[in-house]
Amino acid sequence: MKLAHTMIRIRNLEASLEFYCDFVGLQEVRRKELGDEATLVFLSDDTGNYHIELTLNRDGRDYTVGDQFGHLAFHVDDLDAVISKVKENGWWYRQSKLNSSSRYIFLKDPDGYDIEILQKK
Amino acid sequence: MKLAHTMIRIRNLEASLEFYCDFVGLQEVRRKELGDEATLVFLSDDTGNYHIELTLNRDGRDYTVGDQFGHLAFHVDDLDAVISKVKENGWWYRQSKLNSSSRYIFLKDPDGYDIEILQKK
Repeated sequence: MKLAHTMIRIRNLEASLEFYCDFVGLQEVRRKELGDEATLVFLSDDTGNYHIELTLNRDGRDYTVGDQFGHLAFHVDDLDAVISKVKENGWWYRQSKLNSSSRYIFLKDPDGYDIEILQKK
Repeated sequence: MKLAHTMIRIRNLEASLEFYCDFVGLQEVRRKELGDEATLVFLSDDTGNYHIELTLNRDGRDYTVGDQFGHLAFHVDDLDAVISKVKENGWWYRQSKLNSSSRYIFLKDPDGYDIEILQKK
């Protein structure tokens, strides 16, 4: 067996693509339109090993994110460059403590999901 | 940048390990105890490319899963063998329609997260 993907429901495809592609650095690898009902967009890093599936349902429902789901995490080469972009955008974020064994930040995606960005070791 | 992991909060580590390791087929690759407060367990397939992080918080809080988070998906070689195990266990599941472009089932993990298991093509 192989890990395949994590699917998250989103509200605004443009905002999510801006966040996950332009900001985080993922690439869109596949898109599927389910009539007028839904759009599925698969994102990946350049290995293509795993995907984040964004699902935009056009069902008029208002979904609640709850507090049980944890987060999606991404490794980056230059966490300081990411922090600069976060600050430029005026987004909330929380940084790892100085005595932490790894350097990371937590922030929110456009739908309120928690996102962890980790400095590669 | 690289996709790193998806973290989910769980209620019962033994039940989750039974589900994700014994049933789905992931392996535990790392465990971290945060004092008495929490246990973090990282699971992966044999590529080690991506991880599912299980977080067991001992904070007495009751978390709500909500309906916005989507699912975790896994590819398997033999979906029929998986379906047999699901039936043996008497678990609820929903199967792909006959005219679907891929074969899969949806079921629930011990904490109510939606799980998709896909037949590898």
